[in-house]
Amino acid sequence: MAWLYGSAEAAALSEQAYNGMVRYVRDVLDHARDRRGRLPSQRKAGTLPRWPASAVLAPGATAAMADTLPCGNLPPAVVLDMDETAVLNLGYEYDDAQTARGFDQKRWERWEKAGATKVAAVPGAVAAFRALRAMGVTMVINTNRSAANADQTAQALKNAGLGDFRHGETLFLKGDVDGKSGKDGRRVAIAQKYCVLALAGDQLGDFADLFNPPGPAPAIGRRMLTAVGPIEARWGNGWFVLPNPVYGTGLGTGWDETFPADKRWTDAP
Amino acid sequence: MAWLYGSAEAAALSEQAYNGMVRYVRDVLDHARDRRGRLPSQRKAGTLPRWPASAVLAPGATAAMADTLPCGNLPPAVVLDMDETAVLNLGYEYDDAQTARGFDQKRWERWEKAGATKVAAVPGAVAAFRALRAMGVTMVINTNRSAANADQTAQALKNAGLGDFRHGETLFLKGDVDGKSGKDGRRVAIAQKYCVLALAGDQLGDFADLFNPPGPAPAIGRRMLTAVGPIEARWGNGWFVLPNPVYGTGLGTGWDETFPADKRWTDAP
Repeated sequence: MAWLYGSAEAAALSEQAYNGMVRYVRDVLDHARDRRGRLPSQRKAGTLPRWPASAVLAPGATAAMADTLPCGNLPPAVVLDMDETAVLNLGYEYDDAQTARGFDQKRWERWEKAGATKVAAVPGAVAAFRALRAMGVTMVINTNRSAANADQTAQALKNAGLGDFRHGETLFLKGDVDGKSGKDGRRVAIAQKYCVLALAGDQLGDFADLFNPPGPAPAIGRRMLTAVGPIEARWGNGWFVLPNPVYGTGLGTGWDETFPADKRWTDAP
Repeated sequence: MAWLYGSAEAAALSEQAYNGMVRYVRDVLDHARDRRGRLPSQRKAGTLPRWPASAVLAPGATAAMADTLPCGNLPPAVVLDMDETAVLNLGYEYDDAQTARGFDQKRWERWEKAGATKVAAVPGAVAAFRALRAMGVTMVINTNRSAANADQTAQALKNAGLGDFRHGETLFLKGDVDGKSGKDGRRVAIAQKYCVLALAGDQLGDFADLFNPPGPAPAIGRRMLTAVGPIEARWGNGWFVLPNPVYGTGLGTGWDETFPADKRWTDAP
C-alpha cells in the first residue's frame, strides 16, 4: 500500500500507462483519418482508411490465435476497469490496513455504498480521460462493482474527477449483459456499439477471460501466457496495465511459481 | 515478491514498459533520419533533421524547468538501471524471503559476487535489448552495484541474456565518474559520448537526482513532483519506469503520505 498509494515510483508508473494510452489512441485516430480529417465513424462504411481491429478479442480467441473483433465504422471508445485502474480506493484500503482483516465481501459492499468521497483518481487518469474525450473518444467503465450500487459508483467516478457515467451506456457492472463476473460478455456487447481502441486494467481479466480459465489457477502458465507472441505485442499497444500489488489474482503465487528452482540462492556468510 | 516475481500482471506491466521504450526509440530514430535514411550520428554536424534533446536533464535543471542536454551528432544510446529494471534478483530475494532478515549490505555484496547465475531478465528486456541494438542503439547500464564486482555484474547481465557490457564503456557502477551514489554525474558523462534517447529504472533516482534532495525525504512532495508538467510528460516518453514494490525509496512512506486525511474511511458494520 505504501508503494502503490504513497510512492512517486507507482505514480510515475501510472502516469506512464495513461500517457501511453493517450499516445496510442492519438496515433490510431491519426492513421484512420481521411484527407478531410474524418474518422471512419464520420464516414460511410467501407471507405478508406479503416479502423484497425478492436482491442477486444473475438469469442473463441486464444493467446496464440488472438483474433480481435472488427470495428466497422463504429465510434471510438476506450474501456477501463474501475478499481485501482481509474480510481484508488484509499478509504477502503486505509480501513483494511488499520484493522488488518482479510477481504470481506460485506465490508466491500458497504464501501461501494458509502465510499464515494473517499476515492482518488489514479495518477494520470483525469488528464487522460479529458484528452481522450477531447479527441471524440467515449470512456467506458467495465467493473465488477455491484449493479445495486450503480448510482454510488457513478458518483465515486464523478467525485474523482473522471466525469459522468451512465449504467448500461458507459458504465457496466457485475452481471450486466450475461450475468457473469467474467468480463468477456460485457466487452463483446460494448464492442457492438463502439470501436474499442484500448482496454485498461490492473488484473488480466480486464483484458480477456482466457487468462482466468476455470479450475485451479495455473500460476506459471499464466505468467508465461503474457509472453506469447500475439499477447506480448499488445502490452502498451492497445492493452494498458496499471500497477496493483495490493490485491487480486497476482498475489496468489506461492514459492514455486515466484522463485524458480534454478534461481534460488542461499547466503553463506 | 509474489506479485513482482510471480504474477502475470507484473510481467505484463514490464512488457508494457519495454514495448513502450522500443516504440518510442523507433519513432525518434524515424523522425531523425534524412531522405537517405541516415541518422544524425551518420551525417555531418548541424544537418537536418536533428536529434531531439537528450533524455538526460542538464545540470541545474528543476522539475519546472527541466532542460535536457543537447545531442549534437552523437550516436544513440539507452541508459538503464540494472536491478529490478534489467534483471530480477530472484536468488537474493528468495534468500531474503526465506530468512526474513532486513537488508544487509554485506549479504548484498556476497550476492553481487556469487549470484550471477541466479538472476533472470525482466520480462520484455531480452527482446527489447535485441531490437534496440538492431536499430544501432548502444545499451548502457548505470547501476549502484560495486565497481569491485564489475566482472561478476557483467557476467550476471550476460547470463540473463542481455549481452556484453564493459566497465567504463557500457557499464557504469557506483562511484564511477564522480565518486557518488547519485547517478547524475554518470548520466552527464554518458551523455557526452551518446545521445541518450531513453532512461529506464525502478527508482526515480534512475532518472534524475532532483527526486532525491538531501535531508529527510519529503514523501508527499516527491509523489507530487512526478505530476509537474515537464516531468509528467516524460513518463513513457523517454523515461520508462519498471515496477518494484519489493524494496527502495518507494516503500518509505508512512500513514500520512499513503492515506491523505480526507480519504480515510472507517467501516461501520
